[in-house]
Amino acid sequence: MKVGIIGGTGGIGKGMALRLSQNHEVVIGSRKQEKANVSCDDCCTFLKELGLPFNLMPSTNQGVVDSCDIVVFSVPPETLEVTIDSLTGLEGKIVVSLMNPMEKADYFKYAPPEEGSAAMQLQRMLPDSKVIAAFNNIPANKWNQISEVLDYSVCVCGDYEEEKQLVMDLVNSISKLEALNAGPLAVSATVEAITPLVINIAKFNKMRDVGVYFR
Amino acid sequence: MKVGIIGGTGGIGKGMALRLSQNHEVVIGSRKQEKANVSCDDCCTFLKELGLPFNLMPSTNQGVVDSCDIVVFSVPPETLEVTIDSLTGLEGKIVVSLMNPMEKADYFKYAPPEEGSAAMQLQRMLPDSKVIAAFNNIPANKWNQISEVLDYSVCVCGDYEEEKQLVMDLVNSISKLEALNAGPLAVSATVEAITPLVINIAKFNKMRDVGVYFR
Repeated sequence: MKVGIIGGTGGIGKGMALRLSQNHEVVIGSRKQEKANVSCDDCCTFLKELGLPFNLMPSTNQGVVDSCDIVVFSVPPETLEVTIDSLTGLEGKIVVSLMNPMEKADYFKYAPPEEGSAAMQLQRMLPDSKVIAAFNNIPANKWNQISEVLDYSVCVCGDYEEEKQLVMDLVNSISKLEALNAGPLAVSATVEAITPLVINIAKFNKMRDVGVYFR
Repeated sequence: MKVGIIGGTGGIGKGMALRLSQNHEVVIGSRKQEKANVSCDDCCTFLKELGLPFNLMPSTNQGVVDSCDIVVFSVPPETLEVTIDSLTGLEGKIVVSLMNPMEKADYFKYAPPEEGSAAMQLQRMLPDSKVIAAFNNIPANKWNQISEVLDYSVCVCGDYEEEKQLVMDLVNSISKLEALNAGPLAVSATVEAITPLVINIAKFNKMRDVGVYFR
């Protein structure tokens, strides 16, 4: 399974590339090839220094779509529409959403689009793709700290059972993450809302990088 | 702090009475005094057999309101309105909501009232009470199994900081529950929605009595 990351040069995208490239062929995507090259070089140097194996290459976002079976959208929700408009050929692909739209006031509020969740919005924009929500509630800072074990529960939602299972396998291949089938894509609204919740919990209880475990 | 439970003869209410009566003066409330008496006798016999101390008494729901500082609403969300209409004197009281409105289809769906959450609905109905949401995501079966340690994270939401702290203390006094300040009452929508989520996770992943931990 070749996995590509749209927005792969961002914080979470880069951390995900570092983690996934241990066990998978991974393509780091960016709007600009040059930016993807730089980020990929960084990652490769970093992984080489750690003596870790990896399989990583850079590309444009369109190159990710053209070459990968699983396309992860790791972009800010507000840039989703313009990103989608710039791409072709997503039909039939497994598209993974880890987006959590939120607003900041005195505390972080979940701010879903009218479709109900960012993943449902993505599915509406890409009716011929198979959208699966996953990786939503992993603390952003933990992705990059590659020496740290990730042992969180990861809710996976989607309306396509076979593709959901493939994404669950992908989740389970990273560190000690535990994929849980959380049901259809409509459930992603609750899963996305947990991200502002854990950020608030961290803030109000003086904790750091709060994650979620379902046991 | 005297704690009363409206709907204290139901499954969760009874389990909560058993647990809370170890450290607090607890009043089990019911629509009918006779029903409260029977439930309270059951609890007392059970706790005596276990050689545990307890401080428990039965009352009507109105008796709970008249005699308690903290009033826990452990009633089905659909009976909330008629229950509220039958009571007077809730002004100024700390009112705890553990309700999680949901619908069952192929999976459990969070089904909040138009106020946004059951706790927010309760606050709208009781504008002069101090509503705090707590205890939402504890697996129902675990309340009654008094030999079992409860070590879950418990999100506590509310717009009254002092009263929220009192309810957090109440949470922390039960077994090994860990109270977390989750922010204002508006956050209760996400917290309530986690209950159908964990029920779905249990079902789809062949797990039992799934609880939540934020760490």
